[in-house]
Amino acid sequence: MTVVSERKPALVFADGSAKSAERAVPAEVAIAMSYRGSSHAVMMATPADLVDFAYGFSLTEGIVGSAVEILEVDVVPFDKGIDLQITLAGDRSDALAARRRSMAGPVGCGLCGLESIDAAMRSVLRVGDGFTLRPQDVNAAVEALFPQQPLFAETRAVHGTGFYRPGEGMLVVREDVGRHNALDKLVGALVRQGIEGATGAVVVTSRLSVEMIQKTATAGATVLIAISNPTALAIDTAEAAGITLIATARGDGFSVYTHAHRVKVRDNG
Amino acid sequence: MTVVSERKPALVFADGSAKSAERAVPAEVAIAMSYRGSSHAVMMATPADLVDFAYGFSLTEGIVGSAVEILEVDVVPFDKGIDLQITLAGDRSDALAARRRSMAGPVGCGLCGLESIDAAMRSVLRVGDGFTLRPQDVNAAVEALFPQQPLFAETRAVHGTGFYRPGEGMLVVREDVGRHNALDKLVGALVRQGIEGATGAVVVTSRLSVEMIQKTATAGATVLIAISNPTALAIDTAEAAGITLIATARGDGFSVYTHAHRVKVRDNG
Repeated sequence: MTVVSERKPALVFADGSAKSAERAVPAEVAIAMSYRGSSHAVMMATPADLVDFAYGFSLTEGIVGSAVEILEVDVVPFDKGIDLQITLAGDRSDALAARRRSMAGPVGCGLCGLESIDAAMRSVLRVGDGFTLRPQDVNAAVEALFPQQPLFAETRAVHGTGFYRPGEGMLVVREDVGRHNALDKLVGALVRQGIEGATGAVVVTSRLSVEMIQKTATAGATVLIAISNPTALAIDTAEAAGITLIATARGDGFSVYTHAHRVKVRDNG
Repeated sequence: MTVVSERKPALVFADGSAKSAERAVPAEVAIAMSYRGSSHAVMMATPADLVDFAYGFSLTEGIVGSAVEILEVDVVPFDKGIDLQITLAGDRSDALAARRRSMAGPVGCGLCGLESIDAAMRSVLRVGDGFTLRPQDVNAAVEALFPQQPLFAETRAVHGTGFYRPGEGMLVVREDVGRHNALDKLVGALVRQGIEGATGAVVVTSRLSVEMIQKTATAGATVLIAISNPTALAIDTAEAAGITLIATARGDGFSVYTHAHRVKVRDNG
């Protein structure tokens, strides 16, 4: 099993003196996503929950429309990284080829700038009605995330994402050095565990860029809670997707940028 | 001129009540890097300092070996994004095609997983001797960064990178919603302003992943100071590149993970 953290020697300067110490730091490994013997992507990621990662990435990148199209994920370690060899059902090669041509950055593979920009800005899915939650649910969701992040507790250098259902608590948490990877892992864990995205809130430690909204929409989640702040495009995209975007949630308050109707101050509100 | 921030309405919950407010959030725009009419990459980025971004990206991705190979950068706005049309000197098309095939994630374009992993893990440049600095220089560098981050002051949602020279202060600062973009912009600004990377320290607000080390090495900088924490692979890569990696630098102390000889407690040390 690949380790997810390492202890490294450091020279620690504080209060005018220096002393030797050891610090726990997260592993960072090149992870390839391969379909039909050809890699589609390489991400630098935390080598944990890799089957979830393969499912989530395949879904959020539109390579499959549903988890049942994935037959098998083989985790194949090499010297310098890990290859996730993903076997798809039926003939998804046409869709894969089309997706490869239209995939957003960093490589456009022959598209001109305007075409590549259009591909990157692909329209977002529209989510359903979902559920409502109270302000204290938002605060509770944020407070429930940190105790379930062992790698963050050890290294203070990874992002966490979780799925919170009011009344039931935090059902799943995933961690990664990359916030996009962490969310892909969560999306994969939800589908593999049969948890409907529309039944709870996605909670993330990171800032919210447009891709975080697109991934949340793919999971069918209607509420996204971030401890940090959003970009303007993330807000516009959440508005279009029908997602309730809650940010700057620190456990004692938060800001709702879109679709605030899902946050009810009173139960009968 | 494209705006770099927007004001968005928000419903702010605090102390048991909700009130309407406005919050400043950073713009996030699809930016294509195009060479010879074909896009090489699309990044979601802050639409500021885009010519610096084009220079820095072209250098850190190995599309050019030196800034003199870039003849012109046209900033071409479209509806959904901005195309940076970069004109190269002479015939760089062979190098560009080779680079496109070997470029790390997310798209492998026909490579198998192992080949893509090897490409992503390309060897890092080895930097020169550089300079030495004192512990108080590290603390001063961190303290000099924040006052020069106007977009962070406004939005609390962007990363900053700066170039600090002991005795002279922070010479250049660049900001972006993406930490990789921010560092590419800094690298571009340094070469365009004729500032030698080996004469100072690169300072970043973000965590340090392996790509941040690779970009720092491309700039020829020998000292990298991060306010946040490093990954294990970032530490290993800094060791191999000859870079002094300083992390968890908060203005009152820090940890040195590699090549600590450049940090001198005494001037005659």
